[in-house]
Amino acid sequence: MRFDETYSGNVFIKSHPNYEESTAVLYGMPMDWTVSYRPGSRFGPARIREVSIGLEEYSPYLDRELDDVKYFDAGDIPLPFGNAQKSLNEIENFVKRVLDDGKIPVGMGGEHLVSWPVMKAVYEKYNDLAIIHFDAHTDLRTEYEGEPLSHSTPIRKIAEHIGPKNVYSFGIRSGMKEEFEWARENGMHISKFEVLEPLKEILPTLAGRNVYVTIDIDVLDPAHAPGTGTVDCGGITSKELLASIHAIAGSDVNVVGFDLVEVAPIYDSSEMTANTASKLIREMILGWVK
Amino acid sequence: MRFDETYSGNVFIKSHPNYEESTAVLYGMPMDWTVSYRPGSRFGPARIREVSIGLEEYSPYLDRELDDVKYFDAGDIPLPFGNAQKSLNEIENFVKRVLDDGKIPVGMGGEHLVSWPVMKAVYEKYNDLAIIHFDAHTDLRTEYEGEPLSHSTPIRKIAEHIGPKNVYSFGIRSGMKEEFEWARENGMHISKFEVLEPLKEILPTLAGRNVYVTIDIDVLDPAHAPGTGTVDCGGITSKELLASIHAIAGSDVNVVGFDLVEVAPIYDSSEMTANTASKLIREMILGWVK
Amino acid sequence: MRFDETYSGNVFIKSHPNYEESTAVLYGMPMDWTVSYRPGSRFGPARIREVSIGLEEYSPYLDRELDDVKYFDAGDIPLPFGNAQKSLNEIENFVKRVLDDGKIPVGMGGEHLVSWPVMKAVYEKYNDLAIIHFDAHTDLRTEYEGEPLSHSTPIRKIAEHIGPKNVYSFGIRSGMKEEFEWARENGMHISKFEVLEPLKEILPTLAGRNVYVTIDIDVLDPAHAPGTGTVDCGGITSKELLASIHAIAGSDVNVVGFDLVEVAPIYDSSEMTANTASKLIREMILGWVK
Amino acid sequence: MRFDETYSGNVFIKSHPNYEESTAVLYGMPMDWTVSYRPGSRFGPARIREVSIGLEEYSPYLDRELDDVKYFDAGDIPLPFGNAQKSLNEIENFVKRVLDDGKIPVGMGGEHLVSWPVMKAVYEKYNDLAIIHFDAHTDLRTEYEGEPLSHSTPIRKIAEHIGPKNVYSFGIRSGMKEEFEWARENGMHISKFEVLEPLKEILPTLAGRNVYVTIDIDVLDPAHAPGTGTVDCGGITSKELLASIHAIAGSDVNVVGFDLVEVAPIYDSSEMTANTASKLIREMILGWVK
Amino acid sequence: MRFDETYSGNVFIKSHPNYEESTAVLYGMPMDWTVSYRPGSRFGPARIREVSIGLEEYSPYLDRELDDVKYFDAGDIPLPFGNAQKSLNEIENFVKRVLDDGKIPVGMGGEHLVSWPVMKAVYEKYNDLAIIHFDAHTDLRTEYEGEPLSHSTPIRKIAEHIGPKNVYSFGIRSGMKEEFEWARENGMHISKFEVLEPLKEILPTLAGRNVYVTIDIDVLDPAHAPGTGTVDCGGITSKELLASIHAIAGSDVNVVGFDLVEVAPIYDSSEMTANTASKLIREMILGWVK
Amino acid sequence: MRFDETYSGNVFIKSHPNYEESTAVLYGMPMDWTVSYRPGSRFGPARIREVSIGLEEYSPYLDRELDDVKYFDAGDIPLPFGNAQKSLNEIENFVKRVLDDGKIPVGMGGEHLVSWPVMKAVYEKYNDLAIIHFDAHTDLRTEYEGEPLSHSTPIRKIAEHIGPKNVYSFGIRSGMKEEFEWARENGMHISKFEVLEPLKEILPTLAGRNVYVTIDIDVLDPAHAPGTGTVDCGGITSKELLASIHAIAGSDVNVVGFDLVEVAPIYDSSEMTANTASKLIREMILGWVK
Ligand SMILES: [Mn+2]
Ligand SMILES: [Mn+2]
Ligand SMILES: [Mn+2]
Ligand SMILES: [Mn+2]
Ligand SMILES: [Mn+2]
Ligand SMILES: [Mn+2]
Ligand SMILES: [Mn+2]
Ligand SMILES: [Mn+2]
Ligand SMILES: [Mn+2]
Ligand SMILES: [Mn+2]
Ligand SMILES: [Mn+2]
Ligand SMILES: [Mn+2]
Repeated sequence: MRFDETYSGNVFIKSHPNYEESTAVLYGMPMDWTVSYRPGSRFGPARIREVSIGLEEYSPYLDRELDDVKYFDAGDIPLPFGNAQKSLNEIENFVKRVLDDGKIPVGMGGEHLVSWPVMKAVYEKYNDLAIIHFDAHTDLRTEYEGEPLSHSTPIRKIAEHIGPKNVYSFGIRSGMKEEFEWARENGMHISKFEVLEPLKEILPTLAGRNVYVTIDIDVLDPAHAPGTGTVDCGGITSKELLASIHAIAGSDVNVVGFDLVEVAPIYDSSEMTANTASKLIREMILGWVK
Repeated sequence: MRFDETYSGNVFIKSHPNYEESTAVLYGMPMDWTVSYRPGSRFGPARIREVSIGLEEYSPYLDRELDDVKYFDAGDIPLPFGNAQKSLNEIENFVKRVLDDGKIPVGMGGEHLVSWPVMKAVYEKYNDLAIIHFDAHTDLRTEYEGEPLSHSTPIRKIAEHIGPKNVYSFGIRSGMKEEFEWARENGMHISKFEVLEPLKEILPTLAGRNVYVTIDIDVLDPAHAPGTGTVDCGGITSKELLASIHAIAGSDVNVVGFDLVEVAPIYDSSEMTANTASKLIREMILGWVK
Repeated sequence: MRFDETYSGNVFIKSHPNYEESTAVLYGMPMDWTVSYRPGSRFGPARIREVSIGLEEYSPYLDRELDDVKYFDAGDIPLPFGNAQKSLNEIENFVKRVLDDGKIPVGMGGEHLVSWPVMKAVYEKYNDLAIIHFDAHTDLRTEYEGEPLSHSTPIRKIAEHIGPKNVYSFGIRSGMKEEFEWARENGMHISKFEVLEPLKEILPTLAGRNVYVTIDIDVLDPAHAPGTGTVDCGGITSKELLASIHAIAGSDVNVVGFDLVEVAPIYDSSEMTANTASKLIREMILGWVK
Repeated sequence: MRFDETYSGNVFIKSHPNYEESTAVLYGMPMDWTVSYRPGSRFGPARIREVSIGLEEYSPYLDRELDDVKYFDAGDIPLPFGNAQKSLNEIENFVKRVLDDGKIPVGMGGEHLVSWPVMKAVYEKYNDLAIIHFDAHTDLRTEYEGEPLSHSTPIRKIAEHIGPKNVYSFGIRSGMKEEFEWARENGMHISKFEVLEPLKEILPTLAGRNVYVTIDIDVLDPAHAPGTGTVDCGGITSKELLASIHAIAGSDVNVVGFDLVEVAPIYDSSEMTANTASKLIREMILGWVK
Repeated sequence: MRFDETYSGNVFIKSHPNYEESTAVLYGMPMDWTVSYRPGSRFGPARIREVSIGLEEYSPYLDRELDDVKYFDAGDIPLPFGNAQKSLNEIENFVKRVLDDGKIPVGMGGEHLVSWPVMKAVYEKYNDLAIIHFDAHTDLRTEYEGEPLSHSTPIRKIAEHIGPKNVYSFGIRSGMKEEFEWARENGMHISKFEVLEPLKEILPTLAGRNVYVTIDIDVLDPAHAPGTGTVDCGGITSKELLASIHAIAGSDVNVVGFDLVEVAPIYDSSEMTANTASKLIREMILGWVK
Repeated sequence: MRFDETYSGNVFIKSHPNYEESTAVLYGMPMDWTVSYRPGSRFGPARIREVSIGLEEYSPYLDRELDDVKYFDAGDIPLPFGNAQKSLNEIENFVKRVLDDGKIPVGMGGEHLVSWPVMKAVYEKYNDLAIIHFDAHTDLRTEYEGEPLSHSTPIRKIAEHIGPKNVYSFGIRSGMKEEFEWARENGMHISKFEVLEPLKEILPTLAGRNVYVTIDIDVLDPAHAPGTGTVDCGGITSKELLASIHAIAGSDVNVVGFDLVEVAPIYDSSEMTANTASKLIREMILGWVK
């Protein structure tokens, strides 16, 4: 007696009703308790699903339809309010199971710290892993005001875990001097300000590698993504981010998981950011999940 | 692998997962195509569910908990955009089935016209039916600019269908002169401006009757319900509307169905109206569904 | 070839197309250059007209229709930006002509200072004039930071001009100590905090008098009128203000002009304040213009 | 006694008071009843006029002033709420009269479906007509959920009516697979994603042709036009759209009519979209109306 | 060379520049990391100060001026993001020093949990302490989803600390069944739904007692306080809350400290809630600080 | 006892506590009384400071940290509401003192007219002064509706004062025909529509010159700066404006003062414009104050 949910906004549009048959698994990570500035990204995943029903099911960029891929939407992982460590554990456990079942994890945040346990779990499975990271911010702090679990630390954690040389950041325009120095001294790749051009140069060097892609929506200029906690001018357009997704799709890397984080609906003019996030997810699914 | 939906916002909080075992059935009627002024109530039901997770499960007004009632949330009825007649047919068919299964229909609008097919279906089952109607507006037009299917006509339609003497409107503060005259001449009960006091006087006269209650959220003053299409000052407080619900709960009428309509999230400051709607629904379920 | 403007929102709903035949004349005074806090009321009159088309043409409070009164809408008086004195002169000249033509001036603000030249012009015609003033604020300053032309001075100006004993303020909940003292010492009538009850007591003492009524929308609580420059909690409901208008309508005073000021659309949730203003104007026209 | 309306916001800035003397005729088509996603464009034309008074009267792009062209603003065509077919008939009748009088029709929407009767009427007069269409969407559906009158169908209708080879779409980034295929198979011209460059290539091929131009404001990126029903990232800038208008102005096509549709004020941050629409209309009038 | 800050909005209006000479000390507690629903109250104290400059310096309710009291504004206590325990320690230490210096602490939240260390510190000094608590919520949980530090627990903590019989809650309309039962079984005073009337009855029984007052702004109806994390309809008006403050001012209790919490600017229509909060603080300072 | 203000938002982030030791002095000019369209920029400086605490202290563009420059924040200059001439006098006096003390004035507006007295004062000190002006508007009017003190006149005033040949405007896309003609006839430099490219061409010709830079935030496209009074599409990106600041930093001009004006928070989606303004100020301080 429950109406079909395909276009309900309760699940990402056209997501497959069956977990076992699916190749990819979407899940929300509604956590924002470590953000230093404006909270609100806990409501991101629900809003992205809600507006996804406004999407067309066909991508004229990739000439592929959502019917061509089977992806399951598991909903939001229940997380304990205000407890960062327990929340990260829940996320890690869930993603491990998804990976064990041979499926591609597709995460929606939430603050960027949620990517840390995911990337750790993915690395456990793929030990040649490289990280492609789109962000306005370095996210390379070791702690924030004494707290090692902070939304400004996830890239540092994964870089130390898998080796800084395997991490590629694009579009970075903010960070502490120490963060940029650490990256430079440790061989991490940071493309300051620019995204598409350096990405096109780097992709051939990653051919054949297993890659996890994490997109902080604030890599976009605030004009294109006002609905996020930390707006920072001087960013790229949504057109360039779409082209970057397509560049990865057209390359020889093997995307084994990805996420899009930091969408905060309360600051979102015209639900623009949530709409953009849903289109980006459609393109990543159609472009990266074979 | 789908996370439990009890607190997901995809369904009304604590709604029962099983249709057959449930006493009441919630459903959304996401239609706003006949509104003459500001559209947007099509998104009402989804937002009411979303914010319902902020509710406490216990009512200190009624000393009863949501666990004490089994209600199923069927989701939004899929309706064809822009086609009013087909939409009303879909609603009527669904509600008939709910009634045939011996369950209480609990509707969420959408524009007020959606109540018309519901009330018709309920009357088919209960031919002693009386209607209790809370609204700022008479909704007694026969047509609006030539269109007989309009959000300003549902009460006229049901009044003509079941007899005007069986319809009781409360809080009415806007309408055409002809509408008020028609009501007076045909014995329909209109309580102008006031709600709780006239309701308390009328309830004893309805003792033992089967009653359908339809609440247009604009019976509240715009201060209490900005999130609706047609704001009209001079209305009642949410406190008075809660007390009215409790007055019905404490009376000897038999509520056989009810709805709450005209919540339009786009105009809603602080999601106040959606929150209020979700609390009103909780109180109606706890007070009226035995 | 111009479409009829009766319901266009360019003029107040149902305003009469002909000046000569009209009993009352509406006009906007789009000035906000002396406000000390949040500007924006210059856009008030246009927005009130725009939303007025959502009004019903019949008042169930007064059992009268807009067709029963002929009122012309002259549009907004063109005012020189930033020049208060010239603006006041323009207003005064216009209102004098309206009065000379034997018509009732109905003004829409704009900041409250615009009422000063209007009241002066009305007093020139009716030298027994009394002022009824609804406001959260005393508006009895002699100057604001050195400027004698300020939105906090109009009531002081008119009180000194026609004698403080002829001025009756209601709902006042903010002002300087000196303002309250000046009123008390000079026999001006201030009803602190309350509106309807003291008004009912005073109206019989004004029987037969010519009266000008000026409503600062901030007499309403911010819950009922968020769209204004200076919100001040502890105010009255729109229900009480409607009842106050009806009390004047039912009294023996002779309303020779009136205005409603300080509506600022940019702060207006759900266009609630503009809608309320348009309904208040409808009730004043139907109740006060014979 | 009515104040001059040239700068009132009731008419488009500087519009000519006399129909007969005018070369072009502006009119609003306040209809949004077939939209599948977010309604609200019915209020677009009024808001565009309102903000037009903030425009400069001179175009530094074209070195021409509004005084150099005579255009009349007829106001909004009165349309029956919720009845698409009757609404389209009203529009068609009005535009036919404008064309019969030898004037250029300049429409403001409203949803995109309103362009269909206009283009049909224009084709009746100019049987060599070509359509230039700026949009994020193909608008080539034959129906939407069973309804042939839908805001996603107008280009299909005109393409079938005048022959697909005479229709040129630019900036398209969303649509069904079937729509793109139909266009390709039937010789319709679709420039995916890009606008200015393909336009510059195509314009010479249209030299001497009578052309109708229809702009769906969502061809702009949501960053530049949040105030519309269906935001879709990856769009062009307002700078590029201005340049496209100027490219047409500098070409040898003969623009015989044009419109701009889908502005929805309720979603519009800072009234940016309405302001942009009013500037685009100024440039089109100055550039295309000789 | 720094401009005087009295009216800058950087400090509460008219706050005294000198700590030593002051009788009361204002401070902000910008913490919201344990809230389960909508975060944002961390920005409350700054916005309350900012809008306080719109206040009149005189209270017509109390016939007293801000110049009659010396209060220092210490600014916001620097708190470590996301670490509740450390934050509470910082608050407790600061308040202890204020109390040691013989001054009255006046706190601005921030989530309600911040009141817990304050009340603990106050109790250390005044062991006959009673708590007067205005709130929509019981705040009597022992933990929230396993976390004992939660914004739904502060009243339970202080009740267990000083004895439930010494705690008086007013306006409560939401909570778990267990919370209400615990209160009843342990002799805590809860006035459900109502505020002013029960307060007037209880105040005489507290004559001579030292009292700490904590106001959760959500005791107000959402119409009056939309700017808060958890809106809950059926609340009181700002007029009633003002009257309650004045009732305490007129009683024989000795207010030794107070706070106002849960103002969240991001949800605040027209900055109404921040304005109301600033006026409430003015009245509390003028009424309670002798 | 006052908490350190470095990160309080009361002063620009990391501003130096000591005037005498500082090289540059920030100050706000909270005036908007001559604006013809949408007021609100009086609140700009306070909001820019408030959001500045979200900035990183390091510029990856310039590889320099805020600790490397000493700048004092004097707060907002107290200005008399509604009195333009007195306000300009206050500004001029303050800036003269700053210049006398050998410090660089860094102003935040407020409407653009505030730059006029500043530029006059700077010219008094540096008689070889050139002005670099970024704006959407010419600001070359001699008066606006009869008022010579208007936000559309400052560049005309300074051009006539120091000679039009010494004024360089960039990004101009709106103005009267007469303004453009006056500029051309008098040798003033106007780069229409474009900014970075013409700036790069002109900078070498200004080598060695003392330069004052005035940025009207509306030079940015509305997509990047919705929070301003007069939005005008077709503007540049924040990326281009940042690059322009860096181009000046890398040139041989000697920046002796600068300002950023016309930020109006009430229209600002996601506080984007205020955030952008604060980052631009950071870059100007780091790039131009040696
Ligand atoms: Mn990040
Ligand atoms: Mn980031
Ligand atoms: Mn209704
Ligand atoms: Mn209604
Ligand atoms: Mn006033
Ligand atoms: Mn007032
Ligand atoms: Mn279209
Ligand atoms: Mn489109
Ligand atoms: Mn609380
Ligand atoms: Mn609470
Ligand atoms: Mn300027
Ligand atoms: Mn400008």
